[in-house]
Amino acid sequence: MLMGEGVEWGLHCCVALAWLDDHAPIATARLAEIFELPPEYLKKRLQPLVREGILDSTPGARGGYRLARAPERLTLMDVVAAVEGRTEAFRCTEIRRRGAGAARASTEFDKPCGIAAAMGRAELAWRRELSGQTVADLMAATPANASKYTRRFYESVTG
Amino acid sequence: MLMGEGVEWGLHCCVALAWLDDHAPIATARLAEIFELPPEYLKKRLQPLVREGILDSTPGARGGYRLARAPERLTLMDVVAAVEGRTEAFRCTEIRRRGAGAARASTEFDKPCGIAAAMGRAELAWRRELSGQTVADLMAATPANASKYTRRFYESVTG
Repeated sequence: MLMGEGVEWGLHCCVALAWLDDHAPIATARLAEIFELPPEYLKKRLQPLVREGILDSTPGARGGYRLARAPERLTLMDVVAAVEGRTEAFRCTEIRRRGAGAARASTEFDKPCGIAAAMGRAELAWRRELSGQTVADLMAATPANASKYTRRFYESVTG
Repeated sequence: MLMGEGVEWGLHCCVALAWLDDHAPIATARLAEIFELPPEYLKKRLQPLVREGILDSTPGARGGYRLARAPERLTLMDVVAAVEGRTEAFRCTEIRRRGAGAARASTEFDKPCGIAAAMGRAELAWRRELSGQTVADLMAATPANASKYTRRFYESVTG
């Protein structure tokens, strides 16, 4: 069970866009250079973030991205959900109702399957943790140099 | 980010094998009938559980599966890790070191990336929750009828 690269790329781009907010909008090519990522791929990976209202995208030669909300109001869960979707990782196909279960009254299945419920509790713990952390927290946890070098790098390539 | 069907099948089979322990070993074909699953597929899905010491498998015409440990000592994490592997869902490829980061001293990266650390905390919350629940807990949370019908069904198909 693995996440796509879009989560790593998306989160780093959100932090970089927060640092570069006074230069926004930031062109895809510039954002890609900051992390040495292939610009076309990056553009595709950022599309779900635009669709979900996490990034604003301005078209055209002087266009690019900016954060659509304050970093304090953008959680890791928002980014993960935008990239990976909101479907629970565990899929219950109700196999309890088949075979040996087929003879049981349908009302016996009114209560959710205990296995699905247990897996759901774990997923909830994961989601709670992601919802409790914001892009602002990520910025606060990063050494000051990271922001300084990102700004300096951006100014040198756009210079 | 989705789990394979092996997690659902594996957890249900562990519970059923616990209920049928006095009849063990339980043949693949019989276990498959309990949930109307394709026997060959089920066999493949259970192989990682045998490899990881969760199930004992006895070969031959009278062979089959039994739980290799007491249900109290078998956690949901054990089953999920056996089926899905132990790799963290989030993969950090250290893009912070590239592009704008390339100019920074390598010692600045001694501390793990804050994004990977934040994603790791969420994964840990998920793993903790799965490690805190056992197959015995699943059995306790299931209506008594589920065990009764499974035993009755098994006894009727094995005649």
